[in-house]
Amino acid sequence: MTEIWLKTLTTDTPQAGFELAIKLARMGVKYTQPSDEVRNRLRADYAENADSLTAASQVVAINFQTVATANGYWR
Amino acid sequence: MTEIWLKTLTTDTPQAGFELAIKLARMGVKYTQPSDEVRNRLRADYAENADSLTAASQVVAINFQTVATANGYWR
Amino acid sequence: MTEIWLKTLTTDTPQAGFELAIKLARMGVKYTQPSDEVRNRLRADYAENADSLTAASQVVAINFQTVATANGYWR
Amino acid sequence: MTEIWLKTLTTDTPQAGFELAIKLARMGVKYTQPSDEVRNRLRADYAENADSLTAASQVVAINFQTVATANGYWR
Amino acid sequence: MTEIWLKTLTTDTPQAGFELAIKLARMGVKYTQPSDEVRNRLRADYAENADSLTAASQVVAINFQTVATANGYWR
Amino acid sequence: MTEIWLKTLTTDTPQAGFELAIKLARMGVKYTQPSDEVRNRLRADYAENADSLTAASQVVAINFQTVATANGYWR
Repeated sequence: MTEIWLKTLTTDTPQAGFELAIKLARMGVKYTQPSDEVRNRLRADYAENADSLTAASQVVAINFQTVATANGYWR
Repeated sequence: MTEIWLKTLTTDTPQAGFELAIKLARMGVKYTQPSDEVRNRLRADYAENADSLTAASQVVAINFQTVATANGYWR
Repeated sequence: MTEIWLKTLTTDTPQAGFELAIKLARMGVKYTQPSDEVRNRLRADYAENADSLTAASQVVAINFQTVATANGYWR
Repeated sequence: MTEIWLKTLTTDTPQAGFELAIKLARMGVKYTQPSDEVRNRLRADYAENADSLTAASQVVAINFQTVATANGYWR
Repeated sequence: MTEIWLKTLTTDTPQAGFELAIKLARMGVKYTQPSDEVRNRLRADYAENADSLTAASQVVAINFQTVATANGYWR
Repeated sequence: MTEIWLKTLTTDTPQAGFELAIKLARMGVKYTQPSDEVRNRLRADYAENADSLTAASQVVAINFQTVATANGYWR
């Protein structure tokens, strides 16, 4: 990907770190399915499916582990 | 999200940390499905499905690893 | 939850730590489905399903990582 | 469980550690389904299902992380 | 595999690390299914399936934990 | 298992470490399904299924975390 979208794992706050984890989860999808149109269409479905939402939250949780460690847990 | 919902990963007790892990799991869902009405409707279904509940517990477990580490395991 | 159910991650033995990991996995479910009656009904089903049991064991494994770390691996 | 089945996470070799990880995975199942008869019946099915076997291997991998850390990676 | 495809886990930037994590996820598939033709055919399907994309993103997230740690989180 | 198949987690290169992670994933299956004939038959199916391949790659990723840590990330 020629676009620069990830310069650092450092964030000012835990919440910004959580939101970076969400971005990482979405970019993990985007590298496999680059079409915005297809991803938006799929989102309409899985946003109404409880198990799909839980699975999405799990990917965020894994990425949040990485971001939190990178930031020394904002202590 | 403009609302501030995560200021720190530090909690006073392990149980409060576990409950923060639950909040993180739910926020991971909320960022994908912001509608309270939809999430409540979906919860009625998956709260009666054993595999959905196990999956939810897994996301909590992953987030609890993060919170526990942030708190030095409350030792 | 007003009841205090998790005071410490410290246990005397690895086996007690494993059993705490099981409790954490179950509490992860209980926070989503508080009804004892519903959980017991669901258990009758998933306790006879191999994939459900494997998934349950996975949540225990993740929680056991946390508990083992908290206890310095009982070395 | 009154039986003592886990006294230590320390093993002499990496392979013994991997086999302990398998035992942990199976005990995670046994605590939910204590009946030997039921577990043996279920095994006959999932041992012929590729996805079930992959899931079982994943639980072993997670437990092996714990055991390997406990043993300083046998270095 | 006789081809050398992984010489180091070190990357110059977090984004390059994320892209290495993607490569690791794909190589994990390639070792099981070496045929480029089969993998390309399968990709056409799962790139249109939300749950498959989430699962792929999860493998990337796990590998990104490894790569980020190897690089000291690029701090 | 009386055969010695895992003497060390140390490898010379990251790629050899990745290939050891694959071996660990396969051995996690073999302990549950020891029959070479059955495993080969199952592989023919799941090697053509995208979700099965992603799941296999995930187990490799988890084991690779362990192997990479054991080798100090080959730095």
